[in-house]
Amino acid sequence: MTEFTQIKLDIAEGIATITLHRPEKMNAFTRIMMQEVIDALDITDADDSVRAVIVTGEGERAFCAGADLTPEGSEGNVFARHKEVDDLSDEIVRDGGGRMVLRMFDSKKPLIGACNGVAVGVGATMQLPFDMRLASDNARFGFVFARRGITPEACSSWFLPRLVGMQTALEWCMTGRIFDAQEALGRGLVRSVHPQAELMDAARGLAREIADNTSAVSVAMTRAMLWRLPQESHPMMAHRIDSRSIYRLGKSADSREGVRSFLEKRPPAYPDTVSNDMPDFYPWWEEPEYK
Amino acid sequence: MTEFTQIKLDIAEGIATITLHRPEKMNAFTRIMMQEVIDALDITDADDSVRAVIVTGEGERAFCAGADLTPEGSEGNVFARHKEVDDLSDEIVRDGGGRMVLRMFDSKKPLIGACNGVAVGVGATMQLPFDMRLASDNARFGFVFARRGITPEACSSWFLPRLVGMQTALEWCMTGRIFDAQEALGRGLVRSVHPQAELMDAARGLAREIADNTSAVSVAMTRAMLWRLPQESHPMMAHRIDSRSIYRLGKSADSREGVRSFLEKRPPAYPDTVSNDMPDFYPWWEEPEYK
Amino acid sequence: MTEFTQIKLDIAEGIATITLHRPEKMNAFTRIMMQEVIDALDITDADDSVRAVIVTGEGERAFCAGADLTPEGSEGNVFARHKEVDDLSDEIVRDGGGRMVLRMFDSKKPLIGACNGVAVGVGATMQLPFDMRLASDNARFGFVFARRGITPEACSSWFLPRLVGMQTALEWCMTGRIFDAQEALGRGLVRSVHPQAELMDAARGLAREIADNTSAVSVAMTRAMLWRLPQESHPMMAHRIDSRSIYRLGKSADSREGVRSFLEKRPPAYPDTVSNDMPDFYPWWEEPEYK
Repeated sequence: MTEFTQIKLDIAEGIATITLHRPEKMNAFTRIMMQEVIDALDITDADDSVRAVIVTGEGERAFCAGADLTPEGSEGNVFARHKEVDDLSDEIVRDGGGRMVLRMFDSKKPLIGACNGVAVGVGATMQLPFDMRLASDNARFGFVFARRGITPEACSSWFLPRLVGMQTALEWCMTGRIFDAQEALGRGLVRSVHPQAELMDAARGLAREIADNTSAVSVAMTRAMLWRLPQESHPMMAHRIDSRSIYRLGKSADSREGVRSFLEKRPPAYPDTVSNDMPDFYPWWEEPEYK
Repeated sequence: MTEFTQIKLDIAEGIATITLHRPEKMNAFTRIMMQEVIDALDITDADDSVRAVIVTGEGERAFCAGADLTPEGSEGNVFARHKEVDDLSDEIVRDGGGRMVLRMFDSKKPLIGACNGVAVGVGATMQLPFDMRLASDNARFGFVFARRGITPEACSSWFLPRLVGMQTALEWCMTGRIFDAQEALGRGLVRSVHPQAELMDAARGLAREIADNTSAVSVAMTRAMLWRLPQESHPMMAHRIDSRSIYRLGKSADSREGVRSFLEKRPPAYPDTVSNDMPDFYPWWEEPEYK
Repeated sequence: MTEFTQIKLDIAEGIATITLHRPEKMNAFTRIMMQEVIDALDITDADDSVRAVIVTGEGERAFCAGADLTPEGSEGNVFARHKEVDDLSDEIVRDGGGRMVLRMFDSKKPLIGACNGVAVGVGATMQLPFDMRLASDNARFGFVFARRGITPEACSSWFLPRLVGMQTALEWCMTGRIFDAQEALGRGLVRSVHPQAELMDAARGLAREIADNTSAVSVAMTRAMLWRLPQESHPMMAHRIDSRSIYRLGKSADSREGVRSFLEKRPPAYPDTVSNDMPDFYPWWEEPEYK
């Protein structure tokens, strides 16, 4: 397995756990960490045993305290761009948080956030493409960019209003203030808040619910459909895709097993895999390039 | 009046009520029911006396238990696709729930859901294009597709995030779990929850509020504007349409009556009809085709 | 300074306050008021001392009671369109509320609403492009258009669902009923409700939080990004813009001051201005024309 230095990746009983792992630095984000998370998601996507991915931070203090701005973090530091470019479409210009978040957006497995403490800057924005977010009761969040003279990144202008609506997104980003887990819950950023000691069990429980009851192909398709189709201008665009999906999957081994296990009131044992059994029209979109 | 076999259509005092009516089957959905709902909406759109449409299910147990998967339901069964096709743009591929939901999307009259019990699968997704959703306290919902080896249909990937936000939509569709009326209320899927015995009165009260106070042309225009314009990339697109609408309707008989009745503090008696008095630029869009 | 007759503009300590000022008419909207608000926003955008703009109404009774329909209001009345045109793309057709709201949409400074009483019709819809909305406990709102025989205007079909979701937007616009501050809070239209006597202090406190802690360039960029990028079909479009923004602003004097003041635990003193220091790729969009 790939050797990671700033994250840990554990896979057990169908659940992968990615742990941001620089505890002495409050798990601050670097370009190395970015690449390791991307590599880890390549692994979890390719491993058919993985049914859900939990992302958390090491320790009880921080999920991720943002980009590492200290000199020690500078080798591989996300902000260390020594090369000057004039062309803003140059790859060197690309925001590291955005590169990581776009890989998360493309995940075939559900992403479950377990925010175990402080999450500011990219530590907050990297959580937005997760499918579900849980937080410990000591979690704190901050979209602090305007307090640092920069702007929201990691595609957060695209993701945040979809999660909490325009008014809350604007207030959080324009004031840059830190807020607690209860406010995050009340505004819909996180789905539930848990005592620190119970956070990982709650995240695993949610992952288990998916792993034990659903078809992997169904979930990978559902993930793509729900993140990609709402932007379409008319529901007909969704109708084109979900018609194809119901037609193809309606004849699949998984759908036979889904109905049969339901009628027989027993746990399902789905035979299909994401590696081999995604429908022929998937992916139905073309990924845009950075430019 | 058209003879229906799997639904009932009642029209009284300006309110149409469509009742899914297969009580022995928990009102399970078939291709016949799909066509009958479409036909009923053609009637309610064409009948100027109809000011609002309530959709409910027969009995106190189920609104609609999903697609009828039993052998008895197979004549006209939504899943009975005997013809095999290679071309996924063939009409035979089209999802039946989606065909019905697209007709609802196009309704000129407000649709009010009165969810009187269990609503799973297409029984849940068919409610999403309703304008307002009420539920009885024994209602339960489930976007159960991933537990059957298939995927969300009836354009629900397009509708659901607009109603409950991305996080809730993803959780409900990825876990496929059943949830109750209180959770549906808390997450914004339904606007209110009522004791079973009071559900229909509450739905009728809401329909009455529209019928007794508003212009039919205004409501038909409002329905089209609110469902179609938010997808535009810039508010200018809304400005083009609402400028035209205010300009034309500002000179209409209904707007004269609206202002006059308001100033005279009496109930309005709007003369204009959806059949005859929609503004000349309506519809301003072109309906996309399935392909 | 420009002489205003139907609004007041005060600028003090970095905060501009626009007060709709026709107290004898419940601050009813006219074409003159529309133009004065537009002119005031030109001033607040050009004045680098202004860090936030509060919009409120004179008195304790009304924020704005809607368009002035009385004969006295008819000189400059928003509805006084004496010229008849056939071409609906003619400028004369343009809705006055929409013209004003599109100028608000384009503001470089944060807009904070302090709704001090009744807000119906355009008095409600003009608040939707504000970034944050506060209300007094006696505030009442009404999207009453369908009760007057007309339709939602001022681009509200585009803005309202982004703030309160589709179901609430549809119910408010289809019934046209008046609702109170608590309902506005519960559905997310306003972020907080305050006793009338404390409303302006609360609005100023929020403005202060922005003015005292954030970079003006960061906030102007954030405002454009959050209102404009969520409509993009894919997060890559946001990645293109926020990469450029982080790259350029990451080398700015404001970002140096932002990080330095944070590390030194002192209030920031940002040197950059919206007049001179917006990044070279701003604006990255082309404004669409009315047509």
